[in-house]
Amino acid sequence: MQRRSFIQTSLLAATAVGIAPTIIMGKENRKARLGFLGVGLRGRSHLRQALRRDDVIVNAICDIDADALAASQELIKKAGKKKAAEYTGSEYAFQKLLERDDIDGVIIATPWLWHTPMAVAAMKTGKYAGVEVSAANSLQECWDLVNTYEETNVPCMILENVCYRRDVMAILNMVRKGVFGELVHLECGYQHDLRHVKFNDGTPSRSDGVEFGDKAYSEARWRTLHSVKRNGDLYPTHGIGPVGTMLDINRGNRFVSLTATASKSRGLHDYIIEKGGSDHPNADVRFRLGDVVTSVIKTANGETIIVQHDTNLPRPYSLGFRVQGTKGLWMDIHDSLYIEGTSPDHRWESDKSYMTEYDHPLWKKYENLASGAGHGGMDWFVLHAFVESIKRKVDTPLDAYDAAAWSAISPLSERSISMGSAPQPFPNFTRSKWIKRKPVFALDDSY
Amino acid sequence: MQRRSFIQTSLLAATAVGIAPTIIMGKENRKARLGFLGVGLRGRSHLRQALRRDDVIVNAICDIDADALAASQELIKKAGKKKAAEYTGSEYAFQKLLERDDIDGVIIATPWLWHTPMAVAAMKTGKYAGVEVSAANSLQECWDLVNTYEETNVPCMILENVCYRRDVMAILNMVRKGVFGELVHLECGYQHDLRHVKFNDGTPSRSDGVEFGDKAYSEARWRTLHSVKRNGDLYPTHGIGPVGTMLDINRGNRFVSLTATASKSRGLHDYIIEKGGSDHPNADVRFRLGDVVTSVIKTANGETIIVQHDTNLPRPYSLGFRVQGTKGLWMDIHDSLYIEGTSPDHRWESDKSYMTEYDHPLWKKYENLASGAGHGGMDWFVLHAFVESIKRKVDTPLDAYDAAAWSAISPLSERSISMGSAPQPFPNFTRSKWIKRKPVFALDDSY
Repeated sequence: MQRRSFIQTSLLAATAVGIAPTIIMGKENRKARLGFLGVGLRGRSHLRQALRRDDVIVNAICDIDADALAASQELIKKAGKKKAAEYTGSEYAFQKLLERDDIDGVIIATPWLWHTPMAVAAMKTGKYAGVEVSAANSLQECWDLVNTYEETNVPCMILENVCYRRDVMAILNMVRKGVFGELVHLECGYQHDLRHVKFNDGTPSRSDGVEFGDKAYSEARWRTLHSVKRNGDLYPTHGIGPVGTMLDINRGNRFVSLTATASKSRGLHDYIIEKGGSDHPNADVRFRLGDVVTSVIKTANGETIIVQHDTNLPRPYSLGFRVQGTKGLWMDIHDSLYIEGTSPDHRWESDKSYMTEYDHPLWKKYENLASGAGHGGMDWFVLHAFVESIKRKVDTPLDAYDAAAWSAISPLSERSISMGSAPQPFPNFTRSKWIKRKPVFALDDSY
Repeated sequence: MQRRSFIQTSLLAATAVGIAPTIIMGKENRKARLGFLGVGLRGRSHLRQALRRDDVIVNAICDIDADALAASQELIKKAGKKKAAEYTGSEYAFQKLLERDDIDGVIIATPWLWHTPMAVAAMKTGKYAGVEVSAANSLQECWDLVNTYEETNVPCMILENVCYRRDVMAILNMVRKGVFGELVHLECGYQHDLRHVKFNDGTPSRSDGVEFGDKAYSEARWRTLHSVKRNGDLYPTHGIGPVGTMLDINRGNRFVSLTATASKSRGLHDYIIEKGGSDHPNADVRFRLGDVVTSVIKTANGETIIVQHDTNLPRPYSLGFRVQGTKGLWMDIHDSLYIEGTSPDHRWESDKSYMTEYDHPLWKKYENLASGAGHGGMDWFVLHAFVESIKRKVDTPLDAYDAAAWSAISPLSERSISMGSAPQPFPNFTRSKWIKRKPVFALDDSY
């Protein structure tokens, strides 16, 4: 399996997508007509990519924030495209957008609690759901995505851009070519000092303000409350997405169980005291979120995975990848690689030459188009995959099962922590279809 | 506490050792008279250090292997020292050695299953027990060490040399000076490709042989069987020892609970097939030990610790240290350090200048003596501490509680794995004295 070429696997892929014949057999569209639910900073980043494409038409946008809508129309105007219809005035305005018959799919880039309801509503109206990460906050929401997908046969893609990071795709290529041997242990995480994201002074400036909620700007308005109320891995998919594709999760493998352990919570409180003083009202807020949350997952095929969440402390950004097999391992920290018989004995070498040799066909083909897009080009690929899936009327390469399995780490880690790190079983989201489903992600250079 | 200087802490230390007044008040010896239980490769390494010291007399050695005894006498002769009495002929010959009245302490460097019985017997005969790692294999053995120590008031030191590694001691110094702020999360492990240790061809050559047990040489004779029979972290103390000293374990803090998860087992079997062929009798051996075993520990003070055991796969050696606090973090992988406000924003820097600035007083003082000793000098320090404790008639800086708490990770991880990663409570080895015991390890430049 792991050694087969991209050509061989792409032949298999055509028979592996689980989508209804009526959709897969349809004639290919030349354009994808998109609507945008949420055009804040993240939504406009997607919008910018969409406006660059000749094969995308942006027919409608939705937000409760008038400034966000205005900024979006300005982007559309600058791109020389037709003004989009606007939906606003209520948190449920998106439902009106979904009633339109000139939308093939929606990009959902709203606060976390809206991801699943909007994705479910989109599928129910026959619109491809492209949902930002994480896709769900509770186990029931994970099931909502899966059940709606199975009921409607309308695809739901989790927009996990890190699956398309250039080094990550090269490593995926190496995994499939057997360079690491059989995979044994993987690590990943979201290790990102978010103190400037969780707090600000209510303006777009990159301030040292310590407000969150109504007095704050952008993500701090809603995201920080999750750190107050929840203790678990709140943001697992940037790490687990790439790991999921490498381990064929939901496609010959699955997550079986998880334990999670949270450290004490100090970072956010200390930050408020340091920047706002001990008299600031937020100095009394008690944050439930442990500064470092460690989850350990066991898979059906016997691999172990460490997933870390570390967003409250000063530290350099790192997704902490490690991909270890019977022949060697890679770690993204300092681009470190070791392959037995190839690397110098018992010594790390730089992964640089491997990144060139195993550069993924998608990156080779689309490097020029992707460069300049957000997050080092990976945003281009994730939108490309969504758009191409719509145009071809096929299922998306990351689907509702991926959205559910990856996002489930949040509620499962919360449960485990609340039960003294007791192991939690993963729901069998594919209803055991994982034993026969085949990998489809990035098998060739198409999307 | 963390900011106090070494001078301040050393004043505290004198009142903090938990040893019986009869011993602590005694007159200082000028020499330490040692016996050696086990003089294989590791025992002779200690012997070599001991023979270099003017303050050590080696009065007796014990081993069942005649070659090991002969090689030891040769070392003694070359050092110009008096021939040591020999004890051999039975696995219980050490009991005769312990009856001597010209031995103050013994170095125990035997196969793992002998560590606790020999340490217990040593304490019961009034001899300081210096026991190699790990000190115990089961929870009952951990208790045996603690109970015997408490009954006899004779010190038991776990000879964990990595506690004295130069970078580790500099980091300990930084921890105590508050450079990392309050500690939150630590990582460590034993990530060491031991395939050449677990297998050989029965000769001292560094061969690709795939024998273990009776047909093998040195550690492969006995150590490999643990990989056949046990699934857990078999060798935790090189990692957890330094972490234990940094977190004041048993001295104001303690390990509370642990979960462990083991990956599939592939590496050792693959190695036998590769080097010995699928027809070799050992190709049929089923190794229980997962290739990567991940344990996660929660402490009473709220820190989390990841401990890894990874000895069956090709990989560069690493103890995988990470020391993370509210102000920054260090990782030994590629000597990476980040301190907020000091390091360049959001970027790793080399730890080199910090290693100089915070070089531990012990290393500053004894650098010349230590260099040339085993394992980069740290073997010198661990023996020095044992010898100085004997000479001063005081307790050892690493004690029976440390031996028990650190070694307990092995049986607790085995239990957790056998129960699907269910959390396991650590025994309260100090019988709650940890809440008032004070740190004593390496508080100044004496030992």
